[in-house]
Amino acid sequence: MNREQLRRLLGDVRSGRTGVDRALEKLRVLPYEDLGFARIDHHRQLRKGFPEVILGEGKRPGQIAAILRRMKAASGNVLVTRVSPETAGKVRRAVRGLRHDPLSRTLVLLREKIRLQGRAPIVILAAGTSDIPVAEEAAVTATLLGNEVERVYDVGVAGIHRLFGEMDRISRAGVIIAVAGMEGALPSVVGGLVDRPVIAVPTSVGYGASFGGIAALLAMLNACASGITVVNIDNGFGAAFAAALMNRKA
Amino acid sequence: MNREQLRRLLGDVRSGRTGVDRALEKLRVLPYEDLGFARIDHHRQLRKGFPEVILGEGKRPGQIAAILRRMKAASGNVLVTRVSPETAGKVRRAVRGLRHDPLSRTLVLLREKIRLQGRAPIVILAAGTSDIPVAEEAAVTATLLGNEVERVYDVGVAGIHRLFGEMDRISRAGVIIAVAGMEGALPSVVGGLVDRPVIAVPTSVGYGASFGGIAALLAMLNACASGITVVNIDNGFGAAFAAALMNRKA
Amino acid sequence: MNREQLRRLLGDVRSGRTGVDRALEKLRVLPYEDLGFARIDHHRQLRKGFPEVILGEGKRPGQIAAILRRMKAASGNVLVTRVSPETAGKVRRAVRGLRHDPLSRTLVLLREKIRLQGRAPIVILAAGTSDIPVAEEAAVTATLLGNEVERVYDVGVAGIHRLFGEMDRISRAGVIIAVAGMEGALPSVVGGLVDRPVIAVPTSVGYGASFGGIAALLAMLNACASGITVVNIDNGFGAAFAAALMNRKA
Amino acid sequence: MNREQLRRLLGDVRSGRTGVDRALEKLRVLPYEDLGFARIDHHRQLRKGFPEVILGEGKRPGQIAAILRRMKAASGNVLVTRVSPETAGKVRRAVRGLRHDPLSRTLVLLREKIRLQGRAPIVILAAGTSDIPVAEEAAVTATLLGNEVERVYDVGVAGIHRLFGEMDRISRAGVIIAVAGMEGALPSVVGGLVDRPVIAVPTSVGYGASFGGIAALLAMLNACASGITVVNIDNGFGAAFAAALMNRKA
Amino acid sequence: MNREQLRRLLGDVRSGRTGVDRALEKLRVLPYEDLGFARIDHHRQLRKGFPEVILGEGKRPGQIAAILRRMKAASGNVLVTRVSPETAGKVRRAVRGLRHDPLSRTLVLLREKIRLQGRAPIVILAAGTSDIPVAEEAAVTATLLGNEVERVYDVGVAGIHRLFGEMDRISRAGVIIAVAGMEGALPSVVGGLVDRPVIAVPTSVGYGASFGGIAALLAMLNACASGITVVNIDNGFGAAFAAALMNRKA
Amino acid sequence: MNREQLRRLLGDVRSGRTGVDRALEKLRVLPYEDLGFARIDHHRQLRKGFPEVILGEGKRPGQIAAILRRMKAASGNVLVTRVSPETAGKVRRAVRGLRHDPLSRTLVLLREKIRLQGRAPIVILAAGTSDIPVAEEAAVTATLLGNEVERVYDVGVAGIHRLFGEMDRISRAGVIIAVAGMEGALPSVVGGLVDRPVIAVPTSVGYGASFGGIAALLAMLNACASGITVVNIDNGFGAAFAAALMNRKA
Amino acid sequence: MNREQLRRLLGDVRSGRTGVDRALEKLRVLPYEDLGFARIDHHRQLRKGFPEVILGEGKRPGQIAAILRRMKAASGNVLVTRVSPETAGKVRRAVRGLRHDPLSRTLVLLREKIRLQGRAPIVILAAGTSDIPVAEEAAVTATLLGNEVERVYDVGVAGIHRLFGEMDRISRAGVIIAVAGMEGALPSVVGGLVDRPVIAVPTSVGYGASFGGIAALLAMLNACASGITVVNIDNGFGAAFAAALMNRKA
Amino acid sequence: MNREQLRRLLGDVRSGRTGVDRALEKLRVLPYEDLGFARIDHHRQLRKGFPEVILGEGKRPGQIAAILRRMKAASGNVLVTRVSPETAGKVRRAVRGLRHDPLSRTLVLLREKIRLQGRAPIVILAAGTSDIPVAEEAAVTATLLGNEVERVYDVGVAGIHRLFGEMDRISRAGVIIAVAGMEGALPSVVGGLVDRPVIAVPTSVGYGASFGGIAALLAMLNACASGITVVNIDNGFGAAFAAALMNRKA
Repeated sequence: MNREQLRRLLGDVRSGRTGVDRALEKLRVLPYEDLGFARIDHHRQLRKGFPEVILGEGKRPGQIAAILRRMKAASGNVLVTRVSPETAGKVRRAVRGLRHDPLSRTLVLLREKIRLQGRAPIVILAAGTSDIPVAEEAAVTATLLGNEVERVYDVGVAGIHRLFGEMDRISRAGVIIAVAGMEGALPSVVGGLVDRPVIAVPTSVGYGASFGGIAALLAMLNACASGITVVNIDNGFGAAFAAALMNRKA
Repeated sequence: MNREQLRRLLGDVRSGRTGVDRALEKLRVLPYEDLGFARIDHHRQLRKGFPEVILGEGKRPGQIAAILRRMKAASGNVLVTRVSPETAGKVRRAVRGLRHDPLSRTLVLLREKIRLQGRAPIVILAAGTSDIPVAEEAAVTATLLGNEVERVYDVGVAGIHRLFGEMDRISRAGVIIAVAGMEGALPSVVGGLVDRPVIAVPTSVGYGASFGGIAALLAMLNACASGITVVNIDNGFGAAFAAALMNRKA
Repeated sequence: MNREQLRRLLGDVRSGRTGVDRALEKLRVLPYEDLGFARIDHHRQLRKGFPEVILGEGKRPGQIAAILRRMKAASGNVLVTRVSPETAGKVRRAVRGLRHDPLSRTLVLLREKIRLQGRAPIVILAAGTSDIPVAEEAAVTATLLGNEVERVYDVGVAGIHRLFGEMDRISRAGVIIAVAGMEGALPSVVGGLVDRPVIAVPTSVGYGASFGGIAALLAMLNACASGITVVNIDNGFGAAFAAALMNRKA
Repeated sequence: MNREQLRRLLGDVRSGRTGVDRALEKLRVLPYEDLGFARIDHHRQLRKGFPEVILGEGKRPGQIAAILRRMKAASGNVLVTRVSPETAGKVRRAVRGLRHDPLSRTLVLLREKIRLQGRAPIVILAAGTSDIPVAEEAAVTATLLGNEVERVYDVGVAGIHRLFGEMDRISRAGVIIAVAGMEGALPSVVGGLVDRPVIAVPTSVGYGASFGGIAALLAMLNACASGITVVNIDNGFGAAFAAALMNRKA
Repeated sequence: MNREQLRRLLGDVRSGRTGVDRALEKLRVLPYEDLGFARIDHHRQLRKGFPEVILGEGKRPGQIAAILRRMKAASGNVLVTRVSPETAGKVRRAVRGLRHDPLSRTLVLLREKIRLQGRAPIVILAAGTSDIPVAEEAAVTATLLGNEVERVYDVGVAGIHRLFGEMDRISRAGVIIAVAGMEGALPSVVGGLVDRPVIAVPTSVGYGASFGGIAALLAMLNACASGITVVNIDNGFGAAFAAALMNRKA
Repeated sequence: MNREQLRRLLGDVRSGRTGVDRALEKLRVLPYEDLGFARIDHHRQLRKGFPEVILGEGKRPGQIAAILRRMKAASGNVLVTRVSPETAGKVRRAVRGLRHDPLSRTLVLLREKIRLQGRAPIVILAAGTSDIPVAEEAAVTATLLGNEVERVYDVGVAGIHRLFGEMDRISRAGVIIAVAGMEGALPSVVGGLVDRPVIAVPTSVGYGASFGGIAALLAMLNACASGITVVNIDNGFGAAFAAALMNRKA
Repeated sequence: MNREQLRRLLGDVRSGRTGVDRALEKLRVLPYEDLGFARIDHHRQLRKGFPEVILGEGKRPGQIAAILRRMKAASGNVLVTRVSPETAGKVRRAVRGLRHDPLSRTLVLLREKIRLQGRAPIVILAAGTSDIPVAEEAAVTATLLGNEVERVYDVGVAGIHRLFGEMDRISRAGVIIAVAGMEGALPSVVGGLVDRPVIAVPTSVGYGASFGGIAALLAMLNACASGITVVNIDNGFGAAFAAALMNRKA
Repeated sequence: MNREQLRRLLGDVRSGRTGVDRALEKLRVLPYEDLGFARIDHHRQLRKGFPEVILGEGKRPGQIAAILRRMKAASGNVLVTRVSPETAGKVRRAVRGLRHDPLSRTLVLLREKIRLQGRAPIVILAAGTSDIPVAEEAAVTATLLGNEVERVYDVGVAGIHRLFGEMDRISRAGVIIAVAGMEGALPSVVGGLVDRPVIAVPTSVGYGASFGGIAALLAMLNACASGITVVNIDNGFGAAFAAALMNRKA
């Protein structure tokens, strides 16, 4: 409820078109719907301009299905992230019309045509083959949020000519998402070569002193190149959501 | 050296306008200048579109002065960050024309008028009074990079009505920088209220289990609101540089 | 054995009503019963005013059953926490009359009517759907300890209007328990809005840099709002027990 | 602004006693005052029932003095915590009427008689002599918030008879604050002996593997006794503020 | 090979009883036997006075069996620690005469009568029921090394009267082993009550911020009582071995 | 593409033997082949002088098989590391001619005779029986890279005479690889006895405060003997690769 | 107050020799004296058999002096540890008769002749020259507690022949204290060579990844040799106190 | 004492040229000299082939001077590392002939001409200007150990063309030392471009989440390029010593 709506509501109270108690009710809460275990925010699409997203991790199939069914009553697309194959199977048996992508671990409910909202492609780099699932979570998300996506995979810094061979595609990006595990050096190198925002995504790929992605996370936070920001370990969705906001046409 | 310049150079070799050895030299290195202890990258302004920045921390006053003197031969503005008052004094005695701002710990060499490059204001939020030096490092940087800056300080989540009282200014932002120490909750709340990119800057403000900013850093990486990316602890400069890239007119 | 009982015992020794050796025995130990692997403290109910609680984690079904059987000889209710469904099944086959709640992972032996001891409701907030099991452990415990419980779930700070829509219920609380994983910001916001004690419960909900709840734990310990205290990660029981002590009528 | 005030305001709009724009202004912000670097919340005393508190750490003497001067215009007592002797001296030269206690590192502006609000004494335990400054921060705070305070110092668990010799005083407490560094075992033992809430305060007292208070903090979070909640390392103020909320008469 | 044996060997070289090459061989290596993947040290029993011990963890059943078979050729008892039930079953099918104790996770090959070597009983305390497996590993080890063992279990500090009720047995100890998880406070309290060496064994019992025993380990290293030394998390064997050395008759 | 090749290419452009566009293409990328999810670098063997290596961990059997099939088209040997028995089985069913060694968890495709390239044997020490799998990964790698390998196993510092008995073999090494878990002291002792480079490999062998190899890693990084360098936890491959570079004939 | 004294006291109550109130007082507290900020335990010498020890760290000179003055009224020797030169100077000006040793950072008040209580010498090993201050804290403590002390310094494992050259002295020890920083390997090697208890003392000597002694601490906790127990980083006093208990004649 | 010397000694015993007791003495210890606080190992130069090195950190000027004076009696060069300017001044006043280099924090006693022992230059890379002191410690050490040194400074990965401009010099190296703080990505990139051993040196340069060099250390341990080994944070000396061993002519 913005300033203008508020002014109109108060005008209605003054003129008597709206009663005090009804105004009180409107003022107290922004609209949402209560499922008991989850509150669905139908205004979120207006406020953020994007579809509702459900973090699948930590939710049981029945809970995801219940949220999805309720959302089907409203309009718009829905994205469920971090869904295991078992959970995906159960949810799809309960709710129709879902597309499951096992590589990115996503479920998508696509009811509206995706409208292109991005100024330029979002380029998604993956340092190694094992980083691809996280990169794909970003790719699926960015696409659903209205962006053209370019995938440039297996371009880790240990074979840096591979990266240089793709600089033409990379430099056309509106925003770059750089996904890397192990030593996490890819964003530092890319950030020094382009003048676009780089979102660094550390992954849990590695062993021993990678500590489940901490090594890559710390490297990215300490990147000496400028223009780099960082999201949580394995958070392909978050990187793509932020990239979509950065890339959105005015 | 981009694809077009490369094509032209090869054409010049073919036509004999450029000798093989000279082309070889041009191909081998992008131009930079060697001071022995530091290489100044005069092409950086072209490649990145922004002035050179010197990280003052860990450099001695004599080194900073030498780099600055060499840069004065080229054109463009220069920013030195993380300069203690003592170092600032010594550098200013060695190099003329520097502006020192003790709050943000910056030195600025301003020789060209700053050209506005941003699509909308960059709004900088600071949770508490002690977070202001980091916020000011961001503000000075963002301004120098061609952005209008709005400061909204002391709006931490423990008094959330303070934040709400400023939502009008905040929602006009092109990019939001949210600076917070202690529990670092400010970006989570802001990220849920706006549809613009939020860059979260954890600060080392706090004591005990804040562990020099780790608590805030972890909170920001785990923010449940979407659209948030994170930079290093106390890295106001990095947040502003990334914000300027995101905010830049096409 | 308090000062008055001690004085009486000494008086009995003086008057000859109690022999020296018998007094010696009474003085040396407060009464407990030894099962070999666990000592049951029948006086605990008197000393603490609440029923005995068994931490199920790390105990085998046979051990839990043996402790429960011995307790049935005494009076009062018993709560077993952190019981997996498998363990719960085995214990219930061995001991009759137990109620099992899989969501909160509790077993309850209810033999006495619960007497209301709280001054006001204990309000339990959960930031997200995945935090509900820990919140329910708190709810079951608080109820068993004689409190009225209000559940307010899925009110995380990323959609802060959801929280505000429930402020009326929240502000009637005697004590508030705020359960949150990920960035753990809920207690900070709530603590700034109410003038009641807030017990913050970090959960292990999250991934990557949440480090099994460390991010939320640190955020809560560093909360800039006043009146907040913290318990161990996922410790819904501990939060409710402390809340019951705070809320107890004189 | 609570529900009743809101209803009254809307009634005034309806009746014409208040204009739409004026109501708009009132609705948009709860009252606070902006100093540029700090927002003073004059309503906080009403909302929380306690005086304003300034965290001195990280603020410069001039900032503290400016906040204090502005607060003097309003009524009520003020507490400044974590003030070094140097800062305290400078602030006292700038603002009259402040009491400085170097042991607890506090500055107090006492303009109203403290009204007793507690149901019973708050008992403050300190394990060792080096823990006393943190205990005193708690004692000064609790007193200022309207509580009777009992100090029981140097009762660490390595000489447990010392603690037992004070059980009479301890058991009369409304709330117990247990301050301990090193292994932080005091709250565990006390929590097993009393049926009152125990707030555990880890201190940074210790060396080597105490890691600046982490050892004590972890011990307290893992205390096997029930009824214990924990605050940040060295946070005597936070413990006392929470204790005052728990101890407050209805 | 001690000084005396060395002197004798050199005398034999001088007198010609031993050739130079043979002496060379004797001097170069102390006797051991090479199995390829493990070297069995038959002299260990002489050097240390105790039987050989095999750490079962990380070894495959076939490797354990091969080492045991070779040891059977020599004399003396053998202890295998950290053996899962599956591994124990396989090893016992391959090597005869082994006793398996699932609670302590040990395999014992007992061929010689255990000779009592301790000056006084070794008393083993366990804070909670879940700590008993580690305590039993210590008990089995200490017994095999020739000590009388007293078990005092479920005497954690949250019910400190339980501990006090056993002080008579505890104070007769030659050495005390105190096993505790969670906050690990038991050794601090015991160390303040007795004048015997206390070996503290942290266990991985706990959850959340116990971090697999780190909380207990740190607490024990920071114990403010004197006379306490610490071993690795869950290392019941190591505690008992050290205790046996301390307790051994001259 | 080295300086000489570049000079030749430019000469060809000048003389017209190579067109501008073709030169452009050659200059832009070093040759590699794109499989979509992995880029195979056929020039790597030239650049590094060793066969291609595939890190099996984190790759699915189908991906490993696809990379291997493509590599079979080129010449040279291939090593796959960190392959579980299940994955190895699936890959071997898909690609012929692979040798699987379960102890070292490697798959080898051997098509060319290994040419001895080392100046002296690489000696591989393992402190305990449980460290052997990592030592064997190093041994298989070093052999494939053209080195004679000496295995000296079960020579941990707790029985230091075992190590001394092997000093003759050890001192003939060109490079020494010392593999150890738990306290990781082996490299310190060896490094003080020899004048050859020692590569220390910490392993995740241990429990409790070994923290999955962190204890050994830290010990090795802090080794007071000179000439020691360290690789990642359990990284037998990396140690052997570096050793092969150090040991290679000019 | 032991069982016998208790029986006697109860007998006195029965016979009327002691009144109920007086017995009550005696029973309630073991004797100590209250200084306000520190409780002096005059019975400690009886209970533990050793003099009182004051941890100087974290106490102000005035506090140490006040405790010492009060102790002078009782008999026995006193040890103050971790005293900086400045503090030592101030305390010695306030209390006469103190001996200050700057290397071990101790103050000693020696009023009674030290009576030899140890069965054999306590041998103190220091790995490097920088570890000597901690070793000397142990040496001063062990001497004061009635032990013969042998110092064997600069015998780190990087030059292991130095250690072997001292094995005769080392093997005569009743207890061995092994002090080492950096990689902390000394106790592992020594523990494999002797059959006496080894107390390992990690020191904060080192830099970088020694993390103030964590590397050495972890190495010692994971020592693969048996018979090793560990104390806190830099805790020479604690090692010596425990060693004295182990070494004490029956 | 090697096998040959041992055989000769035993021959001398047999022939009577050497008495048993004298042989015993020779066998027991390798020669070193005892200064009380430090043992000087005159045989080290023979065993390792390099001069003695003194770690200056943690030693007092008087101790360093005493060790140096004793070493002057023997022959050979001496290197003292990690010497502050103050310590260097004091030591130079006590011992003549020392050269002090404040940038590398070294003291050198040069009495013998340095004999070139390296097969090829050791190339030392520094990522940034602030990393130069550590790089210079490596350079001074490598030179003293008989190597030609090439310095290539300020070639961090954020401006990767700077590195590429120096590939000719870098590829002539026998061994490469790559010094970098912050994200520590330099060794990964270099390791992918050359076929020589790369020793990675993390530095403590950075702030916030660099955690004093941990970020760089972890990145280097996880480097995806092969042929990289790592030393302790800021350990320029250790890198150069290991490099000298790798580079030494047969």
